[in-house]
Amino acid sequence: MTKEKLYVIKIGGNIIDSDQNLNLFLKDLASITAHKILVHGGGKIATEISKGLGIEAQMIDGRRITDAETLKIVTMVYGGLINKNIVSKLQAQQCNAIGLSGADANIILSEKRPLKNGIDYGFVADVKQVNAEPLIALIDAGLTPVIAPLSHDGQGNMLNTNADTVASCLAVALSAKYEIQLVYCFELNGVLSDFENKDSVIPEITPYYYLQLKGEGVISKGMIPKLDNSFDAIQGGVEKVIICHANDLLAITTGAQKGTTLSK
Amino acid sequence: MTKEKLYVIKIGGNIIDSDQNLNLFLKDLASITAHKILVHGGGKIATEISKGLGIEAQMIDGRRITDAETLKIVTMVYGGLINKNIVSKLQAQQCNAIGLSGADANIILSEKRPLKNGIDYGFVADVKQVNAEPLIALIDAGLTPVIAPLSHDGQGNMLNTNADTVASCLAVALSAKYEIQLVYCFELNGVLSDFENKDSVIPEITPYYYLQLKGEGVISKGMIPKLDNSFDAIQGGVEKVIICHANDLLAITTGAQKGTTLSK
Repeated sequence: MTKEKLYVIKIGGNIIDSDQNLNLFLKDLASITAHKILVHGGGKIATEISKGLGIEAQMIDGRRITDAETLKIVTMVYGGLINKNIVSKLQAQQCNAIGLSGADANIILSEKRPLKNGIDYGFVADVKQVNAEPLIALIDAGLTPVIAPLSHDGQGNMLNTNADTVASCLAVALSAKYEIQLVYCFELNGVLSDFENKDSVIPEITPYYYLQLKGEGVISKGMIPKLDNSFDAIQGGVEKVIICHANDLLAITTGAQKGTTLSK
Repeated sequence: MTKEKLYVIKIGGNIIDSDQNLNLFLKDLASITAHKILVHGGGKIATEISKGLGIEAQMIDGRRITDAETLKIVTMVYGGLINKNIVSKLQAQQCNAIGLSGADANIILSEKRPLKNGIDYGFVADVKQVNAEPLIALIDAGLTPVIAPLSHDGQGNMLNTNADTVASCLAVALSAKYEIQLVYCFELNGVLSDFENKDSVIPEITPYYYLQLKGEGVISKGMIPKLDNSFDAIQGGVEKVIICHANDLLAITTGAQKGTTLSK
């Protein structure tokens, strides 16, 4: 039986931070007629609201610590402000969006990340289990799920959850039912071989080539988690992963060669 | 054909403001085996966060004005913090909750309230249309929808929406499919004949008796919108409306006479 196609699309915080860029992106997304899921990141709004409330961001080794107050902020901003803002904008484009977090319908069950080298990263999730059934029911009913980067621990607590990981986990869990294309949209044209040259896009990366590029120090540090998530997804049954500029989403869905394609 | 029973339960802000009261209430709610929907109000958290961010509540004639900044706050707090907090707590009680706003799946389409006596109440909704189908699909799949008091205008904007009205509108829209009991849970024992005496609960109110009570000034001003919403719901096809203390929810679902019952 041929599987139906499903796009799992992740949009990064830098695009969300600009109203104009977000509007353009959502217009393109709404015009995709195939099944689709959107996973969104956080952006600077959470940081701004934290500052406004006098909550200082705690950083250890350049990583933000999600303490109890920060968890409240991200639950509000990711699950409320950003999620509902995106949903109402998609609705205005005749895309029947439904905004959810990983707690809703028990879609993403996770656990608080254990201490690493004695460091407590706070209320940050390691994903334990993805329940694809509710999402499949919504998608088959013609809805477009819009997922905030939050999950729950099954004991009454929300957890801050990396959006790239959410996209990758959902893509894997849905790959049994659909032919998945996982598309990471952000503010660059793809994975670059020279970070100073925004046009130096590497068109295709295989796992072997990835190891080589990492060994040579070509891949910038910030890209490594995204690429690790991508190859995890491919390992897990996802057909294709594309990392591209948010403006190229529509071109990609019509088969154009844009951004960086990751393959087996 | 006998309709299945569905409880549409609204929980007020005063209960939400206390962690202990909310936990007790959600434990009771989770143990109801019949179909159910929860609609929640706002509570003081939005006001506290507004104050923290230096946003002054604008009041006209004792009514809060929802300006653009306040709309952001209620979208965050109602749609994010309170909604996901309730969902994760219900999930911990093995109740498969799914948190939504009226924008999600286009459940509640509304319009910005027109000026009244020259006063602009801001981004406040008058409900135009309720789409029950997505809710029915979720309920029939065994999920418990948890609805935040927000809707959308179909043009990309969220709107602040009275939670009692949301509960009433949803109850009416779902009454074609289910036998509905609409239960307004709050911090009092029911509609009181003497506001100073918390035990002076009026057990039953018919539309005729309501007119009489209003004429005599027995019904306190704050209760009138709730009772108007209730009789609207009965007029619209809802079987029964009960106004009761949050602690009495479970007793009511087992047939006990508690609170005030409104009937035709």
